Amino acid sequence: MTTNADGPQPRSRRRTPAGAAVLREDVTEAIRAAVFEELAAAGYARMSIEGIARRAGVGKTAVYRRWRSKLHLVLDVVSALAVQGLPVPDTGTLEGDLRLLFEVTSRALRHPVASQIIPDLQAEAARSPEIAEAMQKALRDGQEGVALRIVAAAERRGEVRRGLDDELALDLISGPLYWRAVVIRPRKLPKGYLHNLAHVTAEAIKAL
Amino acid sequence: MTTNADGPQPRSRRRTPAGAAVLREDVTEAIRAAVFEELAAAGYARMSIEGIARRAGVGKTAVYRRWRSKLHLVLDVVSALAVQGLPVPDTGTLEGDLRLLFEVTSRALRHPVASQIIPDLQAEAARSPEIAEAMQKALRDGQEGVALRIVAAAERRGEVRRGLDDELALDLISGPLYWRAVVIRPRKLPKGYLHNLAHVTAEAIKAL
Repeated sequence: MTTNADGPQPRSRRRTPAGAAVLREDVTEAIRAAVFEELAAAGYARMSIEGIARRAGVGKTAVYRRWRSKLHLVLDVVSALAVQGLPVPDTGTLEGDLRLLFEVTSRALRHPVASQIIPDLQAEAARSPEIAEAMQKALRDGQEGVALRIVAAAERRGEVRRGLDDELALDLISGPLYWRAVVIRPRKLPKGYLHNLAHVTAEAIKAL
Repeated sequence: MTTNADGPQPRSRRRTPAGAAVLREDVTEAIRAAVFEELAAAGYARMSIEGIARRAGVGKTAVYRRWRSKLHLVLDVVSALAVQGLPVPDTGTLEGDLRLLFEVTSRALRHPVASQIIPDLQAEAARSPEIAEAMQKALRDGQEGVALRIVAAAERRGEVRRGLDDELALDLISGPLYWRAVVIRPRKLPKGYLHNLAHVTAEAIKAL
């Protein structure tokens, strides 16, 4: 008899130290993965701890030992996303950097899981201040953080005016692609779309 | 005993013609209004025909006589929204027209009901092809239809290049404000925001 906090795991032969309540990292990861799948399939409102546990192949108590509620579970997963971060492009020009950012973002936004989960969390954010705050933080650390660094690099190179309106620049960078990929949702982007978008966005920011 | 399709209405003293199944327009409108309120409060996944009927002060059968399901009810309400339409600005300049469009759109997007319902239907659209199609149609008839007419008028005036990339122009017009108002959701827009956005968007479209 061990005190493994996740209870008997018939397929595991590892022994855990007697007396220690160990939260197995592989179980935690299985639950996190199940949250993504449940979010995509059912949405936040419909998904349940039961469904997540079933999908992860663990008992409900294994979930509740790690997170107090569905809300806490989703907040944790959203925060984990932000920490991964996007690479910061460094091509030497504003247009080149935007082009790379757009390519990475459009791939991420059109991933089937992301394209279902993002609008869903967005909808929940309109009702839950905690989810709204976690989403804002994920955005600031992710997409917006990278966009700001791209604009700052262009300022240092003298490509754009110092002290330009950062908020407007961020909206010009993030808005059109989000609108196209998440709101309009075409099966595929028009040919040359990201190239043209990077060009016109760079010109718009230079005019700020 | 009448054959009023909405059943006995104790507070109404109107008699309906014998033998005719009449769907009272005021009941229909009460249900439509209740759908908006339930959508905003609970969201699509959580709302129920029972809740809508209760909020409208009618029986469930009054709802089912008009719409087969929750999905059909929401599709009808979304389609009705598009028909209302946005006014098409006609100020004589691209920047002036965009400024007016942005003012109307930002007021609509920041209305508490719209700011909860739009992300919610967006999330459902990722799971339901019918809702996705109704949303696309509402967009084409509404926001995108107006934006296209603004760009076409600028083409006729010679303000922008004929044959420019319409899709990219639409994304430049619709994306940044949607991103700011619906995704970032600040309590209020920064001072001068719509003015500056209209200016830089007009310049970007002239550069297309």
